[in-house]
Amino acid sequence: MTPEQHPALELDETTHQRVRLGILAVLSETTECAFPVLREQLGLTDGNLSRHLRVLEDAGLVEARKTFEDRRPRTWLRLTKQGRKALRDQVAIMEKLVARLRAEDG
Amino acid sequence: MTPEQHPALELDETTHQRVRLGILAVLSETTECAFPVLREQLGLTDGNLSRHLRVLEDAGLVEARKTFEDRRPRTWLRLTKQGRKALRDQVAIMEKLVARLRAEDG
Repeated sequence: MTPEQHPALELDETTHQRVRLGILAVLSETTECAFPVLREQLGLTDGNLSRHLRVLEDAGLVEARKTFEDRRPRTWLRLTKQGRKALRDQVAIMEKLVARLRAEDG
Repeated sequence: MTPEQHPALELDETTHQRVRLGILAVLSETTECAFPVLREQLGLTDGNLSRHLRVLEDAGLVEARKTFEDRRPRTWLRLTKQGRKALRDQVAIMEKLVARLRAEDG
């Protein structure tokens, strides 16, 4: 990045995208979260949640664990250490951007 | 939106998307901005900038004005009143989200 570029460019689409930011935010509030709970919290369809989870898993930010309860499969999601860091970085950039935009506004 | 849903869900993809947020942020710092200046500031290609500008124009957040200089066309972009409001709303939601995530972290 050149110094002339805008701080909005520092945003990483992997974590900034609305649904994925929501997933990371919900997971940051729990140790581990069941797939249907995450889906309800975010008001998503199975397909939409799965698609975005795959992006986050591929990036190493989220990991899934499968269990069986009464012979039915359950999926549990959690943030990885790298995922916590990525969310912290995202929050720091949002803060910087907000501060800059607030300064413009004032 | 139900009260159980996460504040990340309040984010509007029109303004939250990384490139479009950058466009709105740069335009908020000027009265009017020439297309190539905007492109350089955001490190985008012509095509990518045009595509995102179209989304913002269709949503009524940005308006374009064409002029001719030395017989060459120039495009000038500016935020509409609605665009300024949308950016303010986006900043407010980001602030709320950051505050919540900071609280979790602490």
